[in-house]
Amino acid sequence: VLLYDSRASGNCYKVRLALAHLRLVCELHEVDVVDRSGRAELLGHLNPALRVPVLVLDDGRALAESNAIISYLADGSHLAPSEPFARAQVLQWLFFEQYSHEPNIAVVIFWVAYATDPPPHAEIEARRALGHVALEAIERHLSSRSFLVAEKFTIADIALYAYTHCAQRGGFDLDRYPAIGRWLQRIAAQEGHVPMDAPQPK
Amino acid sequence: VLLYDSRASGNCYKVRLALAHLRLVCELHEVDVVDRSGRAELLGHLNPALRVPVLVLDDGRALAESNAIISYLADGSHLAPSEPFARAQVLQWLFFEQYSHEPNIAVVIFWVAYATDPPPHAEIEARRALGHVALEAIERHLSSRSFLVAEKFTIADIALYAYTHCAQRGGFDLDRYPAIGRWLQRIAAQEGHVPMDAPQPK
Repeated sequence: VLLYDSRASGNCYKVRLALAHLRLVCELHEVDVVDRSGRAELLGHLNPALRVPVLVLDDGRALAESNAIISYLADGSHLAPSEPFARAQVLQWLFFEQYSHEPNIAVVIFWVAYATDPPPHAEIEARRALGHVALEAIERHLSSRSFLVAEKFTIADIALYAYTHCAQRGGFDLDRYPAIGRWLQRIAAQEGHVPMDAPQPK
Repeated sequence: VLLYDSRASGNCYKVRLALAHLRLVCELHEVDVVDRSGRAELLGHLNPALRVPVLVLDDGRALAESNAIISYLADGSHLAPSEPFARAQVLQWLFFEQYSHEPNIAVVIFWVAYATDPPPHAEIEARRALGHVALEAIERHLSSRSFLVAEKFTIADIALYAYTHCAQRGGFDLDRYPAIGRWLQRIAAQEGHVPMDAPQPK
């Protein structure tokens, strides 16, 4: 199995973190997330959206969208509930992550930490405010729970952990979210956890 | 089963269209998508993101995010593949829809057709350009296929149909996308199809 990957991308980190918990190893192909020239040639036949991560199976079939990839990898494992409603709740958080969290938190991190030509300050502030709305929703939910779904560590936690744990790089003050703070420590303490910058196991 | 719904929302239409194909009827509770006051009181205990649609089961459990709801409803039915990789491909398109399609196409439709205080023209144009990028990705994919996944009608088609079929309301010229045009006709011709403005069956 081959993963088109980027060390700087939280979306790619989700896949590496799920692989680590599942004790799976895969070949990594690093893709530049700042210089996007050549994307169509590299990924056009693999992902219509031209983004990483993309997982390529040994028979050549390709799967894109980070949350679809971790759902596929975790299917039937301890990282995914088998009960239908809990499965749907995991999906609810995965879609929340891609609609309300990533476009605001990951994009602000990218603008602040990587972009060579970031947008005006007011636009960054507006996105950061929406990121805080997403963090407040997670904080409310976690104030009475240990994990996002079914009181078990699942791919929902992996997906939300990826860009929450490094949100401070985008100027998000996580001290405002004590339940999120405890949850981040809980996720990092799971057996099998690897940090975002961990070297790939050989 | 109760659905917090909006006739104007394509995200809600996805759920109504899936229900129609599954021959399920549910009680509808109309929620205003323009006047958003009172959202926290109405939906706060049901959906941390305070959005419709929300599905409430007879035992009171609530499920949010349109694509999680249709995944839950379609699980085990003819609208969802059972083979693991095809299931993951359906998820890939559902995440593409929420990340690359809805935030650009649905939001532009909302700004043009509903918003009382839309953003400046240049911002609408920038979003519309991103919407065309999403439509081009779908057009490339459908140029050699009848449906998005596994050559079968699935919830991936339902999810992408919702805001594509009415994209012209947001100023998107669909004549540029012949494969999408044929696919839209194919979806509307499926047995059990209902239009977005169809009255709820009694």
